Amino acid sequence: MSVGELFNPRSIALVGATDKSGWSISTLANLRAHGFPGPVHLVNPRGGVVHGQAAHRSLTEIPERVDLAYVMVPTAAVLGVLREGAKLGIRCYVILTAGFGEAGEEGARLEAEITAFAAEHGLTILGPNGNGYINAAAGVTPYGLPIPSPLLRGAVGVVLQSGALASSVLGFAQARNVGISLLTSMGNESVVTVTDVIDHLVDDPATRVVALFLETIRNPAEFSRVARRALEAGKPIVALKIGRSRLASHTAQAHTGALVGDDDVIDAALRQLGVIRVRSLEDLIITAGLLASSGPLPGRRVGVVTPSGGASEIIADRAEDEGLELPPFAPETVARLAEIVPSFGTVQNPLDVTGYVLIDRTLLGRALEAVSADPGIDLIMLLSEPPKVAPPDPAPVLAMYTASAGRIASSPVPVVVVSNVLTDVTEFGRRVQAETGFPYVAGGIEHGLQAIGAAVRWSEQRERALSRTAPLPRAVAPPEGASGMWAEHRAAGLLASAGLPVVPSEMAADESGAVAAAERFGHPVVLKAAAEGLGHKSDVGGVRLGLGGAEEVRQAYREIVAAVPSLDGVLVQPQRRGGIELLVGVVRDPAWGLTLAVGLGGVWVEVLRDTALRVLPVDAGEVRTALTELRGAALLDGVRGGEPADLDAVADVVARVAAFAESLGDGLESLEINPLLVSGSRVEALDALITWR
Amino acid sequence: MSVGELFNPRSIALVGATDKSGWSISTLANLRAHGFPGPVHLVNPRGGVVHGQAAHRSLTEIPERVDLAYVMVPTAAVLGVLREGAKLGIRCYVILTAGFGEAGEEGARLEAEITAFAAEHGLTILGPNGNGYINAAAGVTPYGLPIPSPLLRGAVGVVLQSGALASSVLGFAQARNVGISLLTSMGNESVVTVTDVIDHLVDDPATRVVALFLETIRNPAEFSRVARRALEAGKPIVALKIGRSRLASHTAQAHTGALVGDDDVIDAALRQLGVIRVRSLEDLIITAGLLASSGPLPGRRVGVVTPSGGASEIIADRAEDEGLELPPFAPETVARLAEIVPSFGTVQNPLDVTGYVLIDRTLLGRALEAVSADPGIDLIMLLSEPPKVAPPDPAPVLAMYTASAGRIASSPVPVVVVSNVLTDVTEFGRRVQAETGFPYVAGGIEHGLQAIGAAVRWSEQRERALSRTAPLPRAVAPPEGASGMWAEHRAAGLLASAGLPVVPSEMAADESGAVAAAERFGHPVVLKAAAEGLGHKSDVGGVRLGLGGAEEVRQAYREIVAAVPSLDGVLVQPQRRGGIELLVGVVRDPAWGLTLAVGLGGVWVEVLRDTALRVLPVDAGEVRTALTELRGAALLDGVRGGEPADLDAVADVVARVAAFAESLGDGLESLEINPLLVSGSRVEALDALITWR
Repeated sequence: MSVGELFNPRSIALVGATDKSGWSISTLANLRAHGFPGPVHLVNPRGGVVHGQAAHRSLTEIPERVDLAYVMVPTAAVLGVLREGAKLGIRCYVILTAGFGEAGEEGARLEAEITAFAAEHGLTILGPNGNGYINAAAGVTPYGLPIPSPLLRGAVGVVLQSGALASSVLGFAQARNVGISLLTSMGNESVVTVTDVIDHLVDDPATRVVALFLETIRNPAEFSRVARRALEAGKPIVALKIGRSRLASHTAQAHTGALVGDDDVIDAALRQLGVIRVRSLEDLIITAGLLASSGPLPGRRVGVVTPSGGASEIIADRAEDEGLELPPFAPETVARLAEIVPSFGTVQNPLDVTGYVLIDRTLLGRALEAVSADPGIDLIMLLSEPPKVAPPDPAPVLAMYTASAGRIASSPVPVVVVSNVLTDVTEFGRRVQAETGFPYVAGGIEHGLQAIGAAVRWSEQRERALSRTAPLPRAVAPPEGASGMWAEHRAAGLLASAGLPVVPSEMAADESGAVAAAERFGHPVVLKAAAEGLGHKSDVGGVRLGLGGAEEVRQAYREIVAAVPSLDGVLVQPQRRGGIELLVGVVRDPAWGLTLAVGLGGVWVEVLRDTALRVLPVDAGEVRTALTELRGAALLDGVRGGEPADLDAVADVVARVAAFAESLGDGLESLEINPLLVSGSRVEALDALITWR
Repeated sequence: MSVGELFNPRSIALVGATDKSGWSISTLANLRAHGFPGPVHLVNPRGGVVHGQAAHRSLTEIPERVDLAYVMVPTAAVLGVLREGAKLGIRCYVILTAGFGEAGEEGARLEAEITAFAAEHGLTILGPNGNGYINAAAGVTPYGLPIPSPLLRGAVGVVLQSGALASSVLGFAQARNVGISLLTSMGNESVVTVTDVIDHLVDDPATRVVALFLETIRNPAEFSRVARRALEAGKPIVALKIGRSRLASHTAQAHTGALVGDDDVIDAALRQLGVIRVRSLEDLIITAGLLASSGPLPGRRVGVVTPSGGASEIIADRAEDEGLELPPFAPETVARLAEIVPSFGTVQNPLDVTGYVLIDRTLLGRALEAVSADPGIDLIMLLSEPPKVAPPDPAPVLAMYTASAGRIASSPVPVVVVSNVLTDVTEFGRRVQAETGFPYVAGGIEHGLQAIGAAVRWSEQRERALSRTAPLPRAVAPPEGASGMWAEHRAAGLLASAGLPVVPSEMAADESGAVAAAERFGHPVVLKAAAEGLGHKSDVGGVRLGLGGAEEVRQAYREIVAAVPSLDGVLVQPQRRGGIELLVGVVRDPAWGLTLAVGLGGVWVEVLRDTALRVLPVDAGEVRTALTELRGAALLDGVRGGEPADLDAVADVVARVAAFAESLGDGLESLEINPLLVSGSRVEALDALITWR
């Protein structure tokens, strides 16, 4: 399989070409309109003239070498075309034809045949049930729907798991003056997958940013691999991944898993991989366009230069939403600006240079220059936009924008241009941008700030992700033949054997044993039923807390024996008081593998479902970040005189728990510590449960 | 003052007209271009020819009656123009001139003179420092900046506290094909205020929706009055109110107030008033446009009809964000749709009728008809949009859209049309909408669902607000000469005297009195220091809990006496156990008056700052709604075997507390009950604090 060949054929055959099909008409028109330089052969079993051109009766009849066959024949005829093509040495195919896996069992069978045939003969197939692709960079457009004109070439590679959205994406990209390198409509991904295309785009010199519309991530491991490659290559991936809604998320099975939908795992995974997740098609294109034009943004301290107080205030609100900072200008900047901004204006960040921009056209540019020299600013957000309508004499406008573009280009920090509202960049606007070098406009304020925030976070996440060193799991051999549920007495033992901090515990076989153990620990103590497969001990009366003396211990022992049948014994532990209860769970997600959930335990998890997720592996730094994401994170700082939690100590233990879980291998289904008690820097598991697959 | 006259003059004078001013040029051009039928006189002290027209040297020289003077003279000359105009009987003015209150002390003095003169002579003035207004409905456009052409007439009245944003608002409205009735650029509001204009728009038959950009709400009482009028009249108000950011919000003074920024109070007030608050200019116009075209939407059960699976899934995600429901279709609808949708499609809500819409142009319309008959659907969201580019022969396109518009119009439930992405409605698109009756397109999916959600919530909030009957405050006379801080022993007494549930309490003057009181209550008891001005008793060792016998009571009494100087006595109360602690605070907001904060008490308020706000008055129903907004609301349902709170009982007590606070009159600064203990249906204040102004 060679994806590079697929996207760069020198000759194309349209198989199943017919005047009756809109797809056939569009595909040929697209190839002709967008500059495909090679021959396009038409194949129709009846021959004759199609689209005004002589058609061949079969691939075999074509006298020249064919690099790519674009297949539009009926479902049942597709395999025959592949057989013929393979015989002729045609290696690449786009299959537009539908009726395969998406259409039921018979279709799935046909698709499996195709996949197997392709594997056997090393064929590269895009589809079936996909409209093809648009290689705008190379002018190769075997694509079955009308392409809105003009097709803008640029640095955004687009991969779509929805054919119907391609037109909207193209139309919106055009309205933003965002050019694309390659757009693929994936179809059923029976051979070439989303990750294959991303892999290609990471290596593609024409592509600086990858934009994805994803309905499903078919192969998380492969997706992780290509996402890491993209991160290392410095090519951001922006993704609109649908399936956030409760309707869409499957009910997770395990206890800890039940606190989170599958989409929460995907969300965590994408964040860890540095994939920018957006919630709208608008944000997908605007963010990708920004990153393609600005590259990584260096920091979150934004200097804002606007000609409008109202816009400044909207920006102040929205910047905070995005976690961006608008620091006060340095004294020297304020002094410089005071000489520029009209006397009734206020010199502050965000800066409103006032409506005098309409009188003094140099005002905004001079203010920009002053702000760009501020030592406390990482980047500038400049409110401006190209004109919509061409004046009778465009020369003065072009000159003005050329000057403006020059000032922006000479800024020592990146300048992101944003307009007030999201309206189309018109044909004249595109001309101004092309001829003057006036930069990309990242949407209106609303979407522009979303994009800036996302770009800044991407840069930060990239640094974190590339510097991260998850601890290598200790080589703890998983217990042989472990299966079912391991209750506390076995689970905690396994944790302790790996050097993880677990509350001391003794197993008592009778009353006097329990009393003796309690004496050794010192009162008060806790008694807990130890029984195979007993998960929720307290629900069945298997836990007695705060036992202050021998008689209470005896009494509790008898009650537990009476309440719980088939006891293995009774655990005696010192009673801990105070501290903050955390919940630490490692659950095997069916798609992403072992996943860590860490949160506030006790009543907090019940009321708030307040957990942060990470796909393993994680290091302590990542766990620390996860702890700060908890809505109740302030509890860890210590409230009502409680001791603040030592977050480094907590993160260290949780990261070691995660590594330990990984070391247990494929047999582990879930591991839960509830609670993990934190008192200052003392971190101790008070209960544990392990489930084996 | 007459705002109606201001917006409907039959003759206009431009005072300070000059060829050198862009404002002067634009204002005259606007009046000429947009059909002002009356005479426009130019006034320039030098006379001569201005803008190609003979100018008068003064207002007095104009031979005809002038209804409106548009004033562009230097700041110092404005008052003279008003004096001259008043003498001539000119009642209405727009003052474009800046340099008043916004420019410092001297400007503020000049502005005060103008305001006083206007009041004395009954003048109606828009501005100063404002660009004027655009009465699109009547074709009266005394407005100082270029108006993007074409000016679309419609039912949205726009009121802006930012001149610079007007062009963006007009441009965006045009791009959405949203017509306006009136747009005003308020300036300094020295005479005519935002609320005056809203008041006018509520009565204006051309206006169905009011859209506001607000930097500040100058007069909350007046704003509340006009917002209620709008709600009663069924005219939605949509507002972009800036100042959400922490930077912008002032630090509140009182203890409970410190938990919330001022903006939280504004947010609560706007919600209670049924004002739709949006966060972007895009949402402002799209939401207003939707409400102007659809009117109130009847419910939140949405049937979604799309030609795209990808779009359906984006919609499913975003609909959940907006609190909209996408219920499964009724069996009869499924049966009808199964005959319409191609066999490889899936019949579900959201409905993807598949890309076969490109082949069968009737598909979407037939599906729409089937879904519109579903008994479980309140409204339909239809993915469609007018074409962008005129084909050589537009007739077939117009016919197709006429048919489509007819099907939409005949639907028994409202149909909201939304496109995939937010791109401009083009000139041809506007023509199609005008000629075929094809409805308003509420943005792309992202903004469209925001607008639908807002419109549905508005309808619900309107019903709630109009049916609400806040309890009349009981006529409790505020204590004479009350001042400073009233600690628990006086505050709780006042609450109890008003019939509010307060934990029983006895004041003990010595040890034996305390012991006797404890005997009467039964152990355990609580002892608390009672001292004038002692707010946080426990911080100074003034509280002893869980006293189990006479000796403990004596000991505690002695400790409190030792710890707290100038004691008035010691309060003895029964110790309560269990239950859920709430916090109830009533604080006087400087702008909005008494404001209720209700939240989870204890550690919850410290960790989560989890309170819900309401501006008084409130009834019990509104309090119940507030309780459900708490992030930790699940705690009230009872967790870990705790008794669920009787929400009706809680809401009743809290509403009575609020009414009681109101009854205390203007002298009340704040009243705090912390905790209000809830055990099932027992609701009891355990501590209280009142601060007088």
